Amino acid sequence: MRSLKSSHFSLWLSRSTPLAPAMAASSLLRSLTRHARGASAYRHLPWSPFSTTTAAAAGARDEARKGFPGLGPTAKGEKARVVVLGTGWAGSRLMKDLDTSGYDVVCVAPRNHMVFTPLLASTCVGTLEFRSVAEPLARIQPAVSKSPGSYFFLARCTGVDPDAHTIDCETVTDGEKDTLEPWKFKVAYDKLVFASGAEASTFGIKGVTEHAIFLREVHHAQEIRRRLLLNLMLSDVPGLSEEEKRRLLHCVVVGGGPTGVEFSGELSDFIMRDVKQRYSHVKDYIHVTLIEANEILSSFDVRLRQYATNQLIKSGVRLVQGIVKDVQPNKLILDNGEEVPYGLLVWSTGVGASPFVKSLPFPKSPGGRIGVDEWLRVPSVRDVYAIGDCSGFHESTGKDVLPALAQVAERQGKYLANLLNHVMKAGGGHANSEVEADPGPPFVYKHLGSMATVGRYKALVDLRQSKESRGISLAGFVSFFIWRSAYLTRVVSWRNRFYVAINWLTTLLFGRDISRI
Amino acid sequence: MRSLKSSHFSLWLSRSTPLAPAMAASSLLRSLTRHARGASAYRHLPWSPFSTTTAAAAGARDEARKGFPGLGPTAKGEKARVVVLGTGWAGSRLMKDLDTSGYDVVCVAPRNHMVFTPLLASTCVGTLEFRSVAEPLARIQPAVSKSPGSYFFLARCTGVDPDAHTIDCETVTDGEKDTLEPWKFKVAYDKLVFASGAEASTFGIKGVTEHAIFLREVHHAQEIRRRLLLNLMLSDVPGLSEEEKRRLLHCVVVGGGPTGVEFSGELSDFIMRDVKQRYSHVKDYIHVTLIEANEILSSFDVRLRQYATNQLIKSGVRLVQGIVKDVQPNKLILDNGEEVPYGLLVWSTGVGASPFVKSLPFPKSPGGRIGVDEWLRVPSVRDVYAIGDCSGFHESTGKDVLPALAQVAERQGKYLANLLNHVMKAGGGHANSEVEADPGPPFVYKHLGSMATVGRYKALVDLRQSKESRGISLAGFVSFFIWRSAYLTRVVSWRNRFYVAINWLTTLLFGRDISRI
Repeated sequence: MRSLKSSHFSLWLSRSTPLAPAMAASSLLRSLTRHARGASAYRHLPWSPFSTTTAAAAGARDEARKGFPGLGPTAKGEKARVVVLGTGWAGSRLMKDLDTSGYDVVCVAPRNHMVFTPLLASTCVGTLEFRSVAEPLARIQPAVSKSPGSYFFLARCTGVDPDAHTIDCETVTDGEKDTLEPWKFKVAYDKLVFASGAEASTFGIKGVTEHAIFLREVHHAQEIRRRLLLNLMLSDVPGLSEEEKRRLLHCVVVGGGPTGVEFSGELSDFIMRDVKQRYSHVKDYIHVTLIEANEILSSFDVRLRQYATNQLIKSGVRLVQGIVKDVQPNKLILDNGEEVPYGLLVWSTGVGASPFVKSLPFPKSPGGRIGVDEWLRVPSVRDVYAIGDCSGFHESTGKDVLPALAQVAERQGKYLANLLNHVMKAGGGHANSEVEADPGPPFVYKHLGSMATVGRYKALVDLRQSKESRGISLAGFVSFFIWRSAYLTRVVSWRNRFYVAINWLTTLLFGRDISRI
Repeated sequence: MRSLKSSHFSLWLSRSTPLAPAMAASSLLRSLTRHARGASAYRHLPWSPFSTTTAAAAGARDEARKGFPGLGPTAKGEKARVVVLGTGWAGSRLMKDLDTSGYDVVCVAPRNHMVFTPLLASTCVGTLEFRSVAEPLARIQPAVSKSPGSYFFLARCTGVDPDAHTIDCETVTDGEKDTLEPWKFKVAYDKLVFASGAEASTFGIKGVTEHAIFLREVHHAQEIRRRLLLNLMLSDVPGLSEEEKRRLLHCVVVGGGPTGVEFSGELSDFIMRDVKQRYSHVKDYIHVTLIEANEILSSFDVRLRQYATNQLIKSGVRLVQGIVKDVQPNKLILDNGEEVPYGLLVWSTGVGASPFVKSLPFPKSPGGRIGVDEWLRVPSVRDVYAIGDCSGFHESTGKDVLPALAQVAERQGKYLANLLNHVMKAGGGHANSEVEADPGPPFVYKHLGSMATVGRYKALVDLRQSKESRGISLAGFVSFFIWRSAYLTRVVSWRNRFYVAINWLTTLLFGRDISRI
């Protein structure tokens, strides 16, 4: 079926053929592969039969494309390879804590940095710079750029073969031309960790993907900022009708969770402090509306909800209870038929399972995430784990699926790093070699409380363990800084802590930057 | 010919009809206009007959589009209006120094910030942040966002009617959808200043615009950075041939002027200091080639040229003397037939007149720029000036066209601000009212010398008045800081001076940022 030139390759490919029960076959084949490979340093080279043919490269490239080159399996004497899919809270924390003396780390993800999501809303209006909230993976785990067997691949995982212990990948170029054609390759893993996150929910509402902007990545924040500054400038153009000006400067946020509330707060703060001064011609036309189907911050204590509502109203945010039915280019339609014209539409109504997660051949948790046991292992296969928003306790555990929160993901990443380090030290680092070593205590999540900010220097902190239990809730200035600092120390480097402090200082002294670059 | 609803509008439009010699007609019509308008505060409103019709806005908008709304002419008792096209060195310096007690400033430009071009090359590799080199116009001249008669319009000028003293404009949205349809409007001026700059020269070589990146705007630097980081990551993907890796990581710079040399220097510094550490897998594949048809830094002293050449070679830059004949997606062809594969192609071979400047109905200087007299006035019309790279001394002055340099543009902006302030104080601020007031001394350019950097902390300073004359030339570290500081204090705000210092400090302490956002 494929034209092959090398014996390594045919061995590799045959691993997924159903000659024998998968596990026996693969350990047999691994020893064959090791034998065939000879030199042990070979593994560190790209696993392609063509890596030495520098001449006639075009032909070789075509061949390689058919055969999918990749990183071959590791040998017993070498470090075991942990493949991590994703650079979010879960994956980044895991990779940070992995013991690289016994593991090689290979990360496959469509972005090379972690986003410090709690501060993302602040970047949309220029309180913070984009780079201050993005932490390069190479700084979180330097091995990926320095260690000979560790890599970061800017790619998407397109499939998994749990029996062969391999994944299929394809490079990501974000539509940039003149660089590299999409390139397919395989990566063999000893341990595979899904940490690919979730996807913004649109509830099947028409037009959301086309016209609204989510707030999950740095490029979303950049788009929001560019749009906001564009509309502020365009609304100043002579001859526009009052109605069109109001439309252009109407910022609508759908979803009253922490992200929606924080963004509304930052935006109204920007309007009150910066727009009034710097866009004085149009300052009376700009408004913020927050649309929520139920109540804002519904997971928070009732007193905190009331505090947040009062703060938002005080800073000029219009709160609307309603359900969005349809999104059109310049207006959205509510279920009561009301039309809401907008110039900027930000959508943050929570997350759901991504199409990639849905496509995986694993049992699912309620809600369609990858089902895991209490040790965050995918039960039906060996050496596969899932953490963060893409995973949830399988029904068989009898536990509830945990909420899609940064603190859950971060705690799971930390837990799994310890588990994998422990397994490696017990001699079970390599594929299928997990001797009946005790994986240690199961993962138990202890909720440390929730936080949201409403405008600058105002934060809500809900320290209750769950929605039903009693506990402390705070609203104010001190809690804001303590909480933020606690988070900042987890993953973020000194460089970015320093930049965040400088950004805050500069905004205080000089106001926000308004160049639209 | 057009359907008109308002008497203001018909008056406005009739100003360009050839009823009488233009100047007489326009002063007659201005008095009629003033009479018809009544309230003097009206001018500060958008000059549209429909500005009060908030109902039936859709219909009104259609009508308005046909009739081009705009800012009408100013009346004698009001401030005169200076319309500036462009936010580069020339326009920004002019607007900074204009006396806003007597002038309203209206700026029409496709970007709302000035770019501090001498530091742009440093942003491509992360030595400096993008925002540190962009200065918002509202910070350079706060009147545009605060004063009721001053504006910044994010738009392009599409035509000029010097007799009617108006320009035609159309909004710019950079292809962003869901905002505002392209909107056309007119702006009447008392004084009009062309400061729209020049365009990168491609010498008609096929494929340059499609495949090369220029280095003139912040978005160019962003593109270069994204491409560079993308290629660094892609080259690490398993199975790529050696040849393809070398191609992806081959950075080619065409043009050995200060920009090309500085960018090559920054790039090789980035490779030596950061790539070796952070991309150790691929560090041996990355190379920089600088292609120049003649000699690098040809305007500099011969000793400085030699110093620069040595520095570049020492830091690993390959210097090639050749002429580019053709640019294809992944390779370029030299005139000797040699093929040069590249992953990143930066083009900086100087500038030429833009199509907009070519289209203007004014006499041109040698080289196709707008011809000006010794007071930077466009000789054939009244109240029109041109400064910076879009202008050049008309042949009739007997003077040479000045080089397209930031220091020329900045000095012209400063000179013209003084001239216009002087004219305004002498009672000649309004259109056609330039009484035979002495415009003061003509513009004389005194070259202060040239500077270029070759890698970090190495600068060349050539203090000769011209290429032929004798003078001091320096190469080293102290001159670098003195020279840079001198430039930084001209236009850039304290905020950005502070940020540039912080950026330099951070790069020194933590290395460059490599998140690709």
